[in-house]
Amino acid sequence: MSVNSFGRLLRFTTWGESHGPALGAVVDGCPPGLALSEADIQPFLDARRPGQSKFTTQRQEPDAVRILSGVFEGRTTGTPISLMIENVDQRSKDYSEVAQAYRPGHADYAYDAKYGFRDYRGGGRSSARETAARVAAGGVARLVIPEVRITAYVTEIAGDPIDRAAFDSDEIERNPFFAPDAAAAARWAESVDAARLAGSSLGAVVECVAEGVPAGWGAPLYGKLDADLAAAMMGINAVKAVEIGDGFAAARLTGEQNADRMRPGRDGPEFLANHAGGIAGGISTGQPVVVRVAFKPTSSILTPVETITRGGEATDIRTRGRHDPCVGIRGAPVVAAMMALVLADHKLLHRGQCG
Amino acid sequence: MSVNSFGRLLRFTTWGESHGPALGAVVDGCPPGLALSEADIQPFLDARRPGQSKFTTQRQEPDAVRILSGVFEGRTTGTPISLMIENVDQRSKDYSEVAQAYRPGHADYAYDAKYGFRDYRGGGRSSARETAARVAAGGVARLVIPEVRITAYVTEIAGDPIDRAAFDSDEIERNPFFAPDAAAAARWAESVDAARLAGSSLGAVVECVAEGVPAGWGAPLYGKLDADLAAAMMGINAVKAVEIGDGFAAARLTGEQNADRMRPGRDGPEFLANHAGGIAGGISTGQPVVVRVAFKPTSSILTPVETITRGGEATDIRTRGRHDPCVGIRGAPVVAAMMALVLADHKLLHRGQCG
Amino acid sequence: MSVNSFGRLLRFTTWGESHGPALGAVVDGCPPGLALSEADIQPFLDARRPGQSKFTTQRQEPDAVRILSGVFEGRTTGTPISLMIENVDQRSKDYSEVAQAYRPGHADYAYDAKYGFRDYRGGGRSSARETAARVAAGGVARLVIPEVRITAYVTEIAGDPIDRAAFDSDEIERNPFFAPDAAAAARWAESVDAARLAGSSLGAVVECVAEGVPAGWGAPLYGKLDADLAAAMMGINAVKAVEIGDGFAAARLTGEQNADRMRPGRDGPEFLANHAGGIAGGISTGQPVVVRVAFKPTSSILTPVETITRGGEATDIRTRGRHDPCVGIRGAPVVAAMMALVLADHKLLHRGQCG
Amino acid sequence: MSVNSFGRLLRFTTWGESHGPALGAVVDGCPPGLALSEADIQPFLDARRPGQSKFTTQRQEPDAVRILSGVFEGRTTGTPISLMIENVDQRSKDYSEVAQAYRPGHADYAYDAKYGFRDYRGGGRSSARETAARVAAGGVARLVIPEVRITAYVTEIAGDPIDRAAFDSDEIERNPFFAPDAAAAARWAESVDAARLAGSSLGAVVECVAEGVPAGWGAPLYGKLDADLAAAMMGINAVKAVEIGDGFAAARLTGEQNADRMRPGRDGPEFLANHAGGIAGGISTGQPVVVRVAFKPTSSILTPVETITRGGEATDIRTRGRHDPCVGIRGAPVVAAMMALVLADHKLLHRGQCG
Repeated sequence: MSVNSFGRLLRFTTWGESHGPALGAVVDGCPPGLALSEADIQPFLDARRPGQSKFTTQRQEPDAVRILSGVFEGRTTGTPISLMIENVDQRSKDYSEVAQAYRPGHADYAYDAKYGFRDYRGGGRSSARETAARVAAGGVARLVIPEVRITAYVTEIAGDPIDRAAFDSDEIERNPFFAPDAAAAARWAESVDAARLAGSSLGAVVECVAEGVPAGWGAPLYGKLDADLAAAMMGINAVKAVEIGDGFAAARLTGEQNADRMRPGRDGPEFLANHAGGIAGGISTGQPVVVRVAFKPTSSILTPVETITRGGEATDIRTRGRHDPCVGIRGAPVVAAMMALVLADHKLLHRGQCG
Repeated sequence: MSVNSFGRLLRFTTWGESHGPALGAVVDGCPPGLALSEADIQPFLDARRPGQSKFTTQRQEPDAVRILSGVFEGRTTGTPISLMIENVDQRSKDYSEVAQAYRPGHADYAYDAKYGFRDYRGGGRSSARETAARVAAGGVARLVIPEVRITAYVTEIAGDPIDRAAFDSDEIERNPFFAPDAAAAARWAESVDAARLAGSSLGAVVECVAEGVPAGWGAPLYGKLDADLAAAMMGINAVKAVEIGDGFAAARLTGEQNADRMRPGRDGPEFLANHAGGIAGGISTGQPVVVRVAFKPTSSILTPVETITRGGEATDIRTRGRHDPCVGIRGAPVVAAMMALVLADHKLLHRGQCG
Repeated sequence: MSVNSFGRLLRFTTWGESHGPALGAVVDGCPPGLALSEADIQPFLDARRPGQSKFTTQRQEPDAVRILSGVFEGRTTGTPISLMIENVDQRSKDYSEVAQAYRPGHADYAYDAKYGFRDYRGGGRSSARETAARVAAGGVARLVIPEVRITAYVTEIAGDPIDRAAFDSDEIERNPFFAPDAAAAARWAESVDAARLAGSSLGAVVECVAEGVPAGWGAPLYGKLDADLAAAMMGINAVKAVEIGDGFAAARLTGEQNADRMRPGRDGPEFLANHAGGIAGGISTGQPVVVRVAFKPTSSILTPVETITRGGEATDIRTRGRHDPCVGIRGAPVVAAMMALVLADHKLLHRGQCG
Repeated sequence: MSVNSFGRLLRFTTWGESHGPALGAVVDGCPPGLALSEADIQPFLDARRPGQSKFTTQRQEPDAVRILSGVFEGRTTGTPISLMIENVDQRSKDYSEVAQAYRPGHADYAYDAKYGFRDYRGGGRSSARETAARVAAGGVARLVIPEVRITAYVTEIAGDPIDRAAFDSDEIERNPFFAPDAAAAARWAESVDAARLAGSSLGAVVECVAEGVPAGWGAPLYGKLDADLAAAMMGINAVKAVEIGDGFAAARLTGEQNADRMRPGRDGPEFLANHAGGIAGGISTGQPVVVRVAFKPTSSILTPVETITRGGEATDIRTRGRHDPCVGIRGAPVVAAMMALVLADHKLLHRGQCG
């Protein structure tokens, strides 16, 4: 019950801090015989990599992944796959302020309360750097579920949503916001840049859709597909909310409106709607699995904020150094990785129990 | 990694179907020496019990809990606590229709897709009856965290919210809706009754607050307090969304607005706001832990709905028999129970790692 | 990580004390669609049932198992299977002596040291009664591995071994000692009866062979098939040693002697020996899986023994009441049940990872 | 339920193959604030390191451990501790024979049967190289249990036992066999060297004693201290048997002989014997915890042995290259490490449940 692991049959454990020599993930339980090389994982890391536009942190990290075990002659052996990413750009700076006072909204105070002290360099373990390890693990998970196509994109920044009518999945990779709507991307370029210049930060909503998930993955209770997705997403830094399908909107529907009617289809049933987001009773229905995730604005802001010191005295603090003006943007590839990890795990679990 | 268990150190496993002889929970890892009798658990089951008003299912179940193990001379022994609740009112009816066709929105089709067949009597394992076992387990968990006060209430039914200005916690137990706002309760009485008479159903939002949680419970990643809460809540039947603190609203704030400023207090720090819902970096901050949960309208409705048979032919189906017009109402005690179970588990985990 | 559960995909949790109203097991992760009724489980419980000869405790327990969930229309549904066995013959007696002083060799002192107090009636949770729950769970596990044939028998009592040359598996069920050697059974009848009359107790060794296990079940490290078997067997009350294949004898062989030579066979390889006990590198080889388990003499003896009271004063204690003069005898069906549970779990794990 | 992890609260996961670039362990759940540097771990790795005498494999590995995470300013942070050891001396050789045919006694065939192929270089994941990762993790575990003193030593090689009357713990580190008996070490020098020159191999028995374990660690069932020790030891490469206390010898005692009598002592009870090996009912009694482990002779021998090819044809094979003539010798530090890991885990578990 390692608290730094996730998954059941396909299980990964991550390690590493923002300013340590490296970070990584150990992926256990991967089926044998899958073709795997660094080149299969790197593109996902590149998508999440910082410093690619002025809208993300300027920390320069190649995030080059190395496979240290579990692969032989280009195929997975079924033994643990150790993935390592070296930290390159740990800019030496003066951390004395952060060491002595708590940044509101950050985990600084909670860490001290739990552990008695903390690695204050760049947030230590609570840094979004850790998500690189998840994304690498997710690259392995995708090989386990070739039948599934996962797409993640930003649907809202600072309350400014995309136009669903203008949804264009091809657009997602054409802009630095993973926006499926060019007009929204243009507006966000202005709002995010303004926040950046003001030393402020913005929140965002990421949506993720998995197509091709067959009916039958998941379990009725506790090990529910949606419960595991909720844990997976809420476990990402800065995430404060998760919904499946219509989510909160479903609470405003009647039973008639919410029922996903069924009709005979060429290959099994066809559904006339997908309010359920592809999951009923914790088990996939064969419809697209739809998850929506809310990212809070990063707490690293240049405006001085009231806080206290480790000694308990009142003070003000402002976060110097590099940070994401909208961490939710880079959340898109992370959400996609967690979706892949949960689905791959449940594919194996289903095969284990039901053959 | 039982899929019908939840928790790490304080771990419970539930069993039972809607129309089986009984259902129950086995609670393992409970600290020894705690005073425990059926009388400590029954009140929580009574709060969730159906048939107490016309706004819930008319199924009459005493939901009397029996403790079969783990207690000696009135105190917990530290060994597994087996809790059993007999099913009394399994009305014999004709299930042939449900057996042959899938109820849209229900888990019928997903179960068949996964397991090849299903116990179709009253929803079998996917029935909300199962939540009685969680509530019983939650009664044990509350004894593990006497320092914590948990309150759960309904904040919205069918999109009609309470008036936060009129919030009155004493009101919660005075009305059949767990509403902290008498005026809202009065409005809901009409809307829920109308839905009941129309054979329709409504969704609801439940909020749960835990006061007295000390700073330091939880873990930075994966085993995060908020991730476990998300899994716990999404694992409840009919739940489609979970948020911590401001949740989705946090995605519309700036970093300045979202930062919970700190000031020296008499006993440790005082926070000037609680946007974070009492959790930062997966660890409790000492503020109230706030969770919000969306319940979809139950899929059991009297209106005929398009569906297919097990054989794949088109047909219509309407759900006969007893059901909750708004299952979210009875969700309040269930959400509170899951909150207690997660917090008790993390209290023990924290003590285990950090002493 | 419940400490009263065992298994990974096929996972069971047991509960109950010697003198409580009942005991039971919840079996989770069972594949769906298996034909299951009480009649499939009862024969295994009957084999382990006490009071069938003068060589076991005279406690009279029908050990009638009830299935409370997880089965519908005679087939497993894939949801938790709750098995309950009522305690019938909890003879009321005076426990004041056991309550006040520790029986050497028993868990009395260890329980008090851990939990601060204990259910002293008949050993509470540490009673061999608990093994009834494992045997019931094992009855379910056997249905998961129809390809495997499991045989367990006693090979030694009080240092008096069977004659391997006279091994006759048909004999096992013909005598009250699960002895595959009639002559040994006759000798044991005398030695065990003498121990019984003297209020003494004897140790025993149980051997268990599983035939039909295909090559490939298990895992290289930690989740090794032999490691799980070792935990399963050492987890049985009164067990003090476990060996796989030649076990300790293998430590006295040379590499040449220990190598299980291979030759082409009609269906896959044929092995010219089975020193390994059917497991290499934690994975089954297709040979019979062989485990040997040592049971200590039960600590319940009528001879007064030096001990201390809960208050720390010196005293003597003798165990009154009913007990097994050789608890290892009834260990045979328990060992077989644990073998079935471990193998069924690894069959599902292998299918999950490797398809 | 990663199959390459071990432990519950203090949980470690190992990765790496014999001929990969590196191997390592991730230790999760370590208490915060413990002083830790590579220097605390290296001595244990050095004790296990090969190439230090002609009695172990001549592979030259510095086995220098690097701490990549979880430590800040010389103290554990409570986050995952990533330990990495680079493989230096992977001698390039011709593996075509091992690639094509199965070495009897090795895991070659079992791996192919499970995974469809294998990393045949130096045994891949099944190589004893992996034990370096455990020993490194064990070095961390020892910091968690400063109250415990662990000693492991070889008691028997090829059936030639030490003289218990001559037991001298100071001797253990004075000879290359971890022998507590100088005379036995002298005899073993001859027998092991003879086996080495003959290209043969020998088995051994390792005993491990943990002093200072307080009463109360462990759990009554399944999560028993002895069951976890059994799994830990049987999970070590080449181990075929485990016993606690008197082990198999206990099966030859009467209840009177086996009872560890108790008398009042200065600090709590004093036991007049320790047949139980410090564990009763799965819980520590405060006596020394005693475990004995049997290592088979390594299957790498120079004598040609009958076997089959991957294609199923009959052939002979002899293992070329470097190997341990008696792998059990280097098993002593590995057994000690596993003892430390199990005890540290149960210390935290006990603190978690019982405070």
